[in-house]
Amino acid sequence: MQMKFMRLAVKEALFGVIHEHGGPFGAVIVKKNKVIARAHNTVLKDNDATCHAEVNVVRKASKKLKTFDLKGCEIYTTCEPCPMCFSAMHWANIKRVYYGATLADAKKAGFNELDISAKEMKMYGKSKVELKEKVLCEECLIPFGVFKKRKGKKY
Amino acid sequence: MQMKFMRLAVKEALFGVIHEHGGPFGAVIVKKNKVIARAHNTVLKDNDATCHAEVNVVRKASKKLKTFDLKGCEIYTTCEPCPMCFSAMHWANIKRVYYGATLADAKKAGFNELDISAKEMKMYGKSKVELKEKVLCEECLIPFGVFKKRKGKKY
Repeated sequence: MQMKFMRLAVKEALFGVIHEHGGPFGAVIVKKNKVIARAHNTVLKDNDATCHAEVNVVRKASKKLKTFDLKGCEIYTTCEPCPMCFSAMHWANIKRVYYGATLADAKKAGFNELDISAKEMKMYGKSKVELKEKVLCEECLIPFGVFKKRKGKKY
Repeated sequence: MQMKFMRLAVKEALFGVIHEHGGPFGAVIVKKNKVIARAHNTVLKDNDATCHAEVNVVRKASKKLKTFDLKGCEIYTTCEPCPMCFSAMHWANIKRVYYGATLADAKKAGFNELDISAKEMKMYGKSKVELKEKVLCEECLIPFGVFKKRKGKKY
């Protein structure tokens, strides 16, 4: 684990919130200590409910590596993955996910979260994706702070 | 519910299996009895693990309707949605999903399914997406039959 990758994910999240009025979420995919792809939530920008940061970054990394199989890759994401994003990681054979903020933080910010944690998804689904929580929590909450202050928010 | 929409989803699945050597899954989005979008699984064709039929059809319908909010829309899908696809439907505010084959059928065909049914996703996640199972089961299994007979399959 390297903090610099999570800080890059926070930077992505901030870019989305500040420049695109989007959701406060960012993610980075790393392989052998090299950044393969970075992305933020573009649900509003792209008019597409599937464009969470983690789904976007899986798509970008797959395009770059020219394979749907991202084995050996790790994801750094500012917020605990929702069930859609966790499952996308499972399908892409992502090895490990590091996350900071929690689904409870996302819910507090007004997002209509499904009530299933990443740990529950892993347990119920018997997935091999490894989960590492509480990574740079405070810094991962900064994009939420910027988001909360914005007027005329959309979800 | 109209059977013709599920038959269109089966046709999509067959197209993917026969012409693109892809997974045996198809889906159609309908609003007010009008087809908005149709899609099949393109994981192999697009080198992208998120390209399940249901995610693809949500993306297509959103593009067509120019909104991430697909309220009032229904999905007909040949197979029970996996947790990624169920969650994508939740985020897109899909009203109802009709499905034929089950995740057990997909598992039997060799897919590395997460062990969580659509009903469990709805129950655990407290989602409003309505589920209607066992719609044209036999016809929805036909693409699986074609898939199973193919040599050199990839998953």
